[in-house]
Amino acid sequence: MKSLVFTEYKAPLSYQDSIEPIAKEGQKVIKMQAAAFNRRDFWITLGLYPGIVPNCILGSDGVGEVDGKQYIINPNVEWGDGDLPNKNYSILGMPVNGTFAEYIAVDADRLVEKPAHLTTEQAAALPLGGLTAYHAVFGKCQLKAGEKILITGVGGGVSQMATQLAIAAGAEVYVSSSSEAKILKAMEWGAKGGVNYTKEDWAKRLGKDTGGFDVIIDSAGGEGFKDLVRIAKTGGRIGIYGGTRGAIPQINPAHIFLKHLTIYGCTMGSDKEFLKMVEFVSQHKIIPLVDEVYDLENGNKGLQKMAKGEQFGKVILSI
Amino acid sequence: MKSLVFTEYKAPLSYQDSIEPIAKEGQKVIKMQAAAFNRRDFWITLGLYPGIVPNCILGSDGVGEVDGKQYIINPNVEWGDGDLPNKNYSILGMPVNGTFAEYIAVDADRLVEKPAHLTTEQAAALPLGGLTAYHAVFGKCQLKAGEKILITGVGGGVSQMATQLAIAAGAEVYVSSSSEAKILKAMEWGAKGGVNYTKEDWAKRLGKDTGGFDVIIDSAGGEGFKDLVRIAKTGGRIGIYGGTRGAIPQINPAHIFLKHLTIYGCTMGSDKEFLKMVEFVSQHKIIPLVDEVYDLENGNKGLQKMAKGEQFGKVILSI
Repeated sequence: MKSLVFTEYKAPLSYQDSIEPIAKEGQKVIKMQAAAFNRRDFWITLGLYPGIVPNCILGSDGVGEVDGKQYIINPNVEWGDGDLPNKNYSILGMPVNGTFAEYIAVDADRLVEKPAHLTTEQAAALPLGGLTAYHAVFGKCQLKAGEKILITGVGGGVSQMATQLAIAAGAEVYVSSSSEAKILKAMEWGAKGGVNYTKEDWAKRLGKDTGGFDVIIDSAGGEGFKDLVRIAKTGGRIGIYGGTRGAIPQINPAHIFLKHLTIYGCTMGSDKEFLKMVEFVSQHKIIPLVDEVYDLENGNKGLQKMAKGEQFGKVILSI
Repeated sequence: MKSLVFTEYKAPLSYQDSIEPIAKEGQKVIKMQAAAFNRRDFWITLGLYPGIVPNCILGSDGVGEVDGKQYIINPNVEWGDGDLPNKNYSILGMPVNGTFAEYIAVDADRLVEKPAHLTTEQAAALPLGGLTAYHAVFGKCQLKAGEKILITGVGGGVSQMATQLAIAAGAEVYVSSSSEAKILKAMEWGAKGGVNYTKEDWAKRLGKDTGGFDVIIDSAGGEGFKDLVRIAKTGGRIGIYGGTRGAIPQINPAHIFLKHLTIYGCTMGSDKEFLKMVEFVSQHKIIPLVDEVYDLENGNKGLQKMAKGEQFGKVILSI
């Protein structure tokens, strides 16, 4: 079967023939129809991810068919029953072969019926981003209707899902981005407002205009994290699931404890949350944003687009 | 009546006559018997505390008598009914007159009967430290029996209370200190171990020896906070209620989110937690550590001792 395989660092993925998987006990072999890139795939190609092995079919997100039905695949491998992952936990697509292939063998309990309101490509955009966003917004930060939430860097796939989930939950949603177009898109969805974080004093002004935030979802870290602490309300919850801007410099503990803030480190989410997320998406008819669809053979073009940060929405592979 | 009054920065407290308070509706006038210093009092004398007003009787902790019974005083002023303090919340002893006086008028619902197993002086050592510790250890970090907890800087009053509470809850307790004597005291109480944080690589070795911590309670911040993040287990909870070592430099967000860590900013606790704390202390016969007892007139000697960091246990005023 055709597949996109990680073979070496800082090189294109290899479009090559792989051996068709065989179902072990409790597994199903899925005929893949669409998959999606995540930032994780990009980090892996740079060698910036823990536990990398060579000659692995990448891909955490995917939709496929088996027994005449379409399913989305839960990308958790061995999460277990609890709120925290088991020790041998990994994410589909490294080191376990992933979704960028014509066939994949997964445990049958990884399969969730594709929500009817989504196209195959839209559904492929959902799993990892939807799970991470759901876990951060609801599982950890416990967002409630009417609360004010700020979601930073709305260009990212998880941020977009977080924005859509929070709007559907009845929160007052604000976003930040360096792109006015992305802010406008979020406002089309129903965000109350957005700010360009390249402008000076954006956080100070936003804090003043809104009265501060109950919940903040961030994947940047870096120098700007200080501002987020500053514009969180008393009792505010900050969920951080990434660090694209690097280390957080100089946080004064008093700014955290005098305001009773909680900072949640978030990554992925439990199997239970995956089911809840898909249910929530179905109930509220949320449609993940798709940037562009490539054939599996041209997958490296999608990866290049991500490397330049040019995508807005998920980069999809049609298989 | 005699009282210890804050009049100016970086000067001794003024031992002076103040007007005896009169009970407003819903209040009781308490004849004070003992009070205790907190680090807060020391910060106030340096001007390093928010909302300072001059000519205020200091003191958040105290035990006194009314209607023939002994009570400890809940130092929360206007916390309210929720998990977070009301907007007009303050702590007894600034800007509202505190416990360093012969009499105090407080709302009747601030009074909780003195636990029978404590002397007057021991009971005076309990309120603020006990509440902060209880809130951090149980209210926020949800410590459970059998879990591993590290409490840093066991020289401090809150740390000592946290250590005693955690031991009573059946946790495996480790402490850190720059003083071997303080570590030994904690081990007398039932701590499993302790490390001298002035020694190189203490955190790395402790992490290795223990397998990491489910809960960490810290009031230092500073450079060492990075080590705490490092030796927290996956899913670990870190409660921070102070920043004696200043700003936290350079935290890598990945160290927080890849391990699903939660960082709780903690300060004081709710009225409900105050009641639970006193009940827990009574049930487990916990005895706060008293360093030394001074007459109200000689209170500045206690303050000087705190300024030098020489105390081990609470500095008490007998009134």
